[in-house]
Amino acid sequence: MAPSDSATAFVPGHVTAAFSVHRREDPERTGSRGAGVATSHGVTTTVAPAAETTVILDGTDTSIEPVVRVLDALGVTARVTCETPLPIGAGFGVSGAAALGAAFAADEAFGVGRSENDLITVAHVAEVESGTGLGDVVAQARGGVPIRLDPGAPAHGRLDGVPATGRVEYLSFGDLSTAEVIEGDASALSAAGERALASLRERPTPDRLIEAGRTFARDADVLVDEVRAVLDAVPGAAMAMLGRSVFAFGTALTDAGYDAAACEIDHAGVRRR
Amino acid sequence: MAPSDSATAFVPGHVTAAFSVHRREDPERTGSRGAGVATSHGVTTTVAPAAETTVILDGTDTSIEPVVRVLDALGVTARVTCETPLPIGAGFGVSGAAALGAAFAADEAFGVGRSENDLITVAHVAEVESGTGLGDVVAQARGGVPIRLDPGAPAHGRLDGVPATGRVEYLSFGDLSTAEVIEGDASALSAAGERALASLRERPTPDRLIEAGRTFARDADVLVDEVRAVLDAVPGAAMAMLGRSVFAFGTALTDAGYDAAACEIDHAGVRRR
Repeated sequence: MAPSDSATAFVPGHVTAAFSVHRREDPERTGSRGAGVATSHGVTTTVAPAAETTVILDGTDTSIEPVVRVLDALGVTARVTCETPLPIGAGFGVSGAAALGAAFAADEAFGVGRSENDLITVAHVAEVESGTGLGDVVAQARGGVPIRLDPGAPAHGRLDGVPATGRVEYLSFGDLSTAEVIEGDASALSAAGERALASLRERPTPDRLIEAGRTFARDADVLVDEVRAVLDAVPGAAMAMLGRSVFAFGTALTDAGYDAAACEIDHAGVRRR
Repeated sequence: MAPSDSATAFVPGHVTAAFSVHRREDPERTGSRGAGVATSHGVTTTVAPAAETTVILDGTDTSIEPVVRVLDALGVTARVTCETPLPIGAGFGVSGAAALGAAFAADEAFGVGRSENDLITVAHVAEVESGTGLGDVVAQARGGVPIRLDPGAPAHGRLDGVPATGRVEYLSFGDLSTAEVIEGDASALSAAGERALASLRERPTPDRLIEAGRTFARDADVLVDEVRAVLDAVPGAAMAMLGRSVFAFGTALTDAGYDAAACEIDHAGVRRR
């Protein structure tokens, strides 16, 4: 493929139901184990070659550190434009999606010629080094309802999935700092995450994912008041890690009277537009 | 999820451009390395519980051995109905798609509760034991333009991908026996397949996939006259392994005046409907 003027990629959002933190010397081997849902509401990222790198998110000049790191790693500078219907910093993996989309779009715009695993690795490392996430990128690359069996980039991290399709609802009350939780002492959280993952692998269904996520949120002590209230009212809802947000399959949130956003499970994962 | 009356899954078609054969004692570790394209023309499979297993393909009672093996492995009997616009036995992975679709649909219809990797493994083993294919199932589960780095089921076979999107064209002159080629002495073919894979991994682009596929078809000595004539006329076309069929990206076949079928790269892989 010849280099083109600009290129665009779409990356699904991703909500994590439960996770454990795994830090190694090597950022490619650093990551999380856990499970979540890739959503058809995602991030569309366009990369256009430019003299210096700038990032525009939903029309506003901003800085998304993992995006800048991705372009640096590929040795290019570009104007990066991201559009998303998702709330920012609220547990939907917007930073991971922007980083992964920037990698795929830049590969095309500059004719870099990397494989998908290489581009996923570049985005995963950028996200880990920025402290913005540990497992969204590999999940967003796969799509579906991904189970992260191992932490890390594709060469190290095996994935599985829960067979499921259909509607996903979500509701957000705003952001939580991911870095604060995942950079600190995560041993109690990780122990709860490992139990949740074991429970899900015993019976990999959407119902069990929600159940494991609810138990994890309580055991890992990450519940905030607004989220706790929704989980108390809606047995089919789980918390989106790590944001003041909840998600559910089907119509569980709207049935309970919440004004929730609705989308679908995204099976395709990252792809060029 | 509670067991339902019937369930449906869609699985993309898959054309292989080049491959090498890897036989082991264990069917889970048996498979092919290589690369190909998942197509939005695929197989829609519906599974309805029944006293005995029957298979209907495009309205006709038939027998698809890997489908029967999948149901046996899951311990169920059902009426299986497959619909596809693809030609049968012509290199588009219809048997693998039917087996994988049957696994996903049966898991839902009977409330089996297996993970995606488990269901992919069941379908892969069924296909290997039937002698109908070696690498389609894992590629069809992934979607996109899959590179099979290792042979075998998900626990053993790593995958990568060529980042690409857009139109795929194909043309078929009929079937070739897969079993004859992959069950016999495949050492010359496999050596050519390994060279093709190395060339693609050096530069994982759609252009290189076609180029590697064309070289493979010649070196592996699997070209048939009708296919050779198209490849001579259309530099952007490669042979679909193993059928009397060709495929190309974009509009390469129709531009050259061929009455080719058209679909898209399918990024999603297997999914429930």
